[in-house]
Amino acid sequence: METAPAPASAPRRRLSPAVRIQQILDAALVEFCERGYGDTRMDDIARRAGLSKGGLYAHFDSKDAVFEALLRRSLAMPSLEGMPEPDAHVPTREFAAWLVDRLYAQIADPAGLRVLWLMIAERERVGHLLELWDRQVIGPYEVVLQRALAAREAAGARPSVLSRAPWLALSPLIHATMRELVIRAPGAAEMAQWRQAHEDLLVELLDPASRLAR
Amino acid sequence: METAPAPASAPRRRLSPAVRIQQILDAALVEFCERGYGDTRMDDIARRAGLSKGGLYAHFDSKDAVFEALLRRSLAMPSLEGMPEPDAHVPTREFAAWLVDRLYAQIADPAGLRVLWLMIAERERVGHLLELWDRQVIGPYEVVLQRALAAREAAGARPSVLSRAPWLALSPLIHATMRELVIRAPGAAEMAQWRQAHEDLLVELLDPASRLAR
Repeated sequence: METAPAPASAPRRRLSPAVRIQQILDAALVEFCERGYGDTRMDDIARRAGLSKGGLYAHFDSKDAVFEALLRRSLAMPSLEGMPEPDAHVPTREFAAWLVDRLYAQIADPAGLRVLWLMIAERERVGHLLELWDRQVIGPYEVVLQRALAAREAAGARPSVLSRAPWLALSPLIHATMRELVIRAPGAAEMAQWRQAHEDLLVELLDPASRLAR
Repeated sequence: METAPAPASAPRRRLSPAVRIQQILDAALVEFCERGYGDTRMDDIARRAGLSKGGLYAHFDSKDAVFEALLRRSLAMPSLEGMPEPDAHVPTREFAAWLVDRLYAQIADPAGLRVLWLMIAERERVGHLLELWDRQVIGPYEVVLQRALAAREAAGARPSVLSRAPWLALSPLIHATMRELVIRAPGAAEMAQWRQAHEDLLVELLDPASRLAR
């Protein structure tokens, strides 16, 4: 067995800004949910994160800035990095499964649901941040999705309503998330059914011929 | 011109219970939205509705009962009364347009959006009512929708994912409503595009052959 240096003898290191920012956002989410956005002060967030107020302001100018970072972290749309080349060689089923996997990974995080709840509950106060989030996070995602679908069509796939309205590809996820948020968390079996139905919907839309062939 | 009796000389009539209940629910919605569900008392609702507390209790046993009635009134799924006979003689486009018309009529009511917001914001407090609403309002609607789709299939339509997962037929509406609730009310042109996309989605799912024929 190797002998590792005892932790106490290791030089104390400052947390990197990236780690510190995650801690601040975790702390802010707890405070916002407990007190409501309006009644949470920067002091409360700093205390919960174990920082001085100055330490907090080194990272965020304002409560608005904290909430905006929370929206970007927790409600980012899935990155399309690693997307299979959208050409005729990627079968529709594989494309749909890949998309659905990406989408559902986003809502597997319980913090994401809490942020979603918060943005709805506090919408009067944070409306300007919601518009920003819509424009800078959701909007570009729909554009990328639209481009991927257009590339598939260029490679011979039949156009579907998704090309004109790529937001429809997300609707079953939004629906499932609302259900989870409002009614109850689904069991694993129910969640698997939702995902499968979402995937099947995409396949039926993107490849009508496959259905007629069944 | 006929001479109508002057209103003052007409005998004073009591409001019918049905009218009174609507007034109570209108008053309750204002109070819940202003004070939050937890801080609203039956007294507040009675005062806003212009009733004595006893007058209010003649109609509702509790604040829970008021909220439940509000959910049933504002977030009822569209009645399927007057539904065209779901047989092969109703073209798919007509069936889809009818369904979408019904669904969007529901969210045209701004009070419906306020109740939706309230049920999300207060979900911790009213979770038991949300489950009841899900079971008694949403559940039966999905069953009726499923039956209508099954009848179309029996008459020769090709099965789609909607038969197994009728909730998918509602997803674009839920998505549009969330967008309206969180981000902003759409303009008339945008709303018309959403509805059209929803209708096209249903047609593409229910009648894949029509798409291949284009």
